[in-house]
Amino acid sequence: MYQNLKEVLSSFGYEEYAGPFLEPFELLASKSSEEIVNEQLYHFEDKGGRRVAIRPEMTPTLARMVAARLPELSRPIRWFSIPTCMRYERPQRGRLREFDQLNVDVFGGNELEEDVEILLVAVSLLEKFQAKRDSFTVHVNDRRLLDAFILKSLEVPEEGSKGICRLIDKREKISQAEFRAQGASLGLSEEKISLLERYLSSELKDQHELVDAPEVVDGLIARFETLRKVTDANIVFSPALARGFDYYTGMVFEVFDNHPDNNRAMFGGGRYDNLVSAFRKDKMSGLGFGMGDVALQNFVESHGLVPELKKEIDVWISFQEQGEYLDACLLAQKLRSLGLSVETNLRPQKLGKSLEVGSKKGASAAIFFNSEGRAKGEFEVKFLATGVQETGSQSALEELVSKIKETR
Amino acid sequence: MYQNLKEVLSSFGYEEYAGPFLEPFELLASKSSEEIVNEQLYHFEDKGGRRVAIRPEMTPTLARMVAARLPELSRPIRWFSIPTCMRYERPQRGRLREFDQLNVDVFGGNELEEDVEILLVAVSLLEKFQAKRDSFTVHVNDRRLLDAFILKSLEVPEEGSKGICRLIDKREKISQAEFRAQGASLGLSEEKISLLERYLSSELKDQHELVDAPEVVDGLIARFETLRKVTDANIVFSPALARGFDYYTGMVFEVFDNHPDNNRAMFGGGRYDNLVSAFRKDKMSGLGFGMGDVALQNFVESHGLVPELKKEIDVWISFQEQGEYLDACLLAQKLRSLGLSVETNLRPQKLGKSLEVGSKKGASAAIFFNSEGRAKGEFEVKFLATGVQETGSQSALEELVSKIKETR
Repeated sequence: MYQNLKEVLSSFGYEEYAGPFLEPFELLASKSSEEIVNEQLYHFEDKGGRRVAIRPEMTPTLARMVAARLPELSRPIRWFSIPTCMRYERPQRGRLREFDQLNVDVFGGNELEEDVEILLVAVSLLEKFQAKRDSFTVHVNDRRLLDAFILKSLEVPEEGSKGICRLIDKREKISQAEFRAQGASLGLSEEKISLLERYLSSELKDQHELVDAPEVVDGLIARFETLRKVTDANIVFSPALARGFDYYTGMVFEVFDNHPDNNRAMFGGGRYDNLVSAFRKDKMSGLGFGMGDVALQNFVESHGLVPELKKEIDVWISFQEQGEYLDACLLAQKLRSLGLSVETNLRPQKLGKSLEVGSKKGASAAIFFNSEGRAKGEFEVKFLATGVQETGSQSALEELVSKIKETR
Repeated sequence: MYQNLKEVLSSFGYEEYAGPFLEPFELLASKSSEEIVNEQLYHFEDKGGRRVAIRPEMTPTLARMVAARLPELSRPIRWFSIPTCMRYERPQRGRLREFDQLNVDVFGGNELEEDVEILLVAVSLLEKFQAKRDSFTVHVNDRRLLDAFILKSLEVPEEGSKGICRLIDKREKISQAEFRAQGASLGLSEEKISLLERYLSSELKDQHELVDAPEVVDGLIARFETLRKVTDANIVFSPALARGFDYYTGMVFEVFDNHPDNNRAMFGGGRYDNLVSAFRKDKMSGLGFGMGDVALQNFVESHGLVPELKKEIDVWISFQEQGEYLDACLLAQKLRSLGLSVETNLRPQKLGKSLEVGSKKGASAAIFFNSEGRAKGEFEVKFLATGVQETGSQSALEELVSKIKETR
């Protein structure tokens, strides 16, 4: 799993970083969301009387590390990490208390180019697992569009904005009548409720008529135009998308798993204004996303995309008598030095039984000895997929190695 | 660093496992040493009222996991992990509170073969970093030899054994007179103290005369005979070696870093009788070792063996005008699909400045556009190591990719 992720990220030039598992409580309290800090944080006092917490996410650590190294890093900065994190939540499908979360972030470029790249990366990660086009959908919005609509078009003051966001979030789950009733109880007029319905059902190009945020709409149009030329993934405009965290300030996105068993946001992210504000005066805006291991695992399992495990070993060397052990051990070392992975049994074992073990361990070939051959530096090689058996020799190891590598 | 370790372990057929970072306090209390549990454990009550602890080592987790899967695992079982662990200690050279520790364990074979293999693995790990023969020494003993000597030859009852072990441990650091005085205060006669001195200075073959443990001595002799034929690493008999943990029951070893700055045991391990005793009736003896990241880091740094970082990326694509961005993005995607790692700048940038960034990022080649070429699907390729520049074309990407791969 992680190998696939790392290969994609490395193909985009992202550099892996690592941070500490325990952080000062204050760092997390100042940078994480209230819900996480108040309800989900594992925190305690260490033996030195310091209040520490197990990281519930990587962003505060990332912010601190980027801030510390900012002057020396060449732009754009592309970083990723796959930290283990913990949150005290009720374990449920898609979420465990201890989880690994891929974090991908980019800083130091223009908004358009960064936004396009991070979506391309997100899509490429899933495509690396051979995900089909209709297996996931990327929903994209811009927080500035939603905010401007609420503030300017609905004329709801800032303190009412959260209530409207919660209503928008519920729209799919309740009836239209209920939606309109709840809108009214938030103080929206009939007319404004209709406007809200239009906003939620309008295409991107029509938003110019509904929201006074021409640059934001044009920016999103430009992103979609570029994306359509570089990927055929299913990327759609979703005016309802807000993303929970307060710190998003521009484009936001969520990738939905379209499998009926997992019908939910698999992962998402967005743009933030100044990641390092707590640590430096320099501004550093950028964007990123976090992808949990369990959501990805559910996705690949449900869609039948679990990567085949690589064959474990090339050669299983089996000895039947104690006297053959040294030869087995020496031959194993030679084959390892020629680039093969080799296991031996570690006690004399009957041949038939031992060949079974070799097969179970996924070896391409099994090697064993017979007494006449052994004196001449010879041994038997059995290719386990075909059953073909031949005599090998110490003097022709390299040819044997090439042959075995071909069966990988 | 870890890539090197993983490659060696995979060449020996060891399989990677992972376990949880938090474990129930009771599991660690029952399986870890007293010193760790009483003084070094990070433990606290979680929100559900359970006492949990951050793992200070991997062995208790390993024991639980092996026990759970024992019936289905084919022998020999070869497992490794590189968990992050925490111990509350005073940070010092070679030790930090949060550390990664490679754990390697083998079970299910004969003692001799297992012991030889685990020493071979330990040695191969360091050799993978090109460690020279005289840069480290492997000290080997058998707990049963030391125990038999103390019990039968010195005639010290079991409860006095720890005191003798502590005295033995100090011998190099105190004068002979002091050593003899402390021996006397532990109740040893003049004669027994002389016997102890002979034990500590005798070669392995002479131990038959000093200790009544013929099978143990012959077993060690057999291990050394085999090892001498399969490795030229510096592996020596060390009758003083005990290793702290109570659970070792057979061969024990420590690998010493011979660099004057690090003159200490870098890592070590040994044989244990029944790893899974807390979880299953089946016996499962085996052996293993743990190697901390910092000790390894100090070793490779002191000996000038820090692995050269792999070149970060193959290609740096640079665009100078906004209009070139889409072409840059498309070309990057094509080159990635052909197996290259490619970064682009994310805002228009002057060529000279951008080529500097590409160099700093370790790219083999930089690609940029000029306006006439771009219309024909052409671009400029500059090989950054040689400064050679040529014109590339969309229609000849595969040849370009081969050329760039050759410069890796």
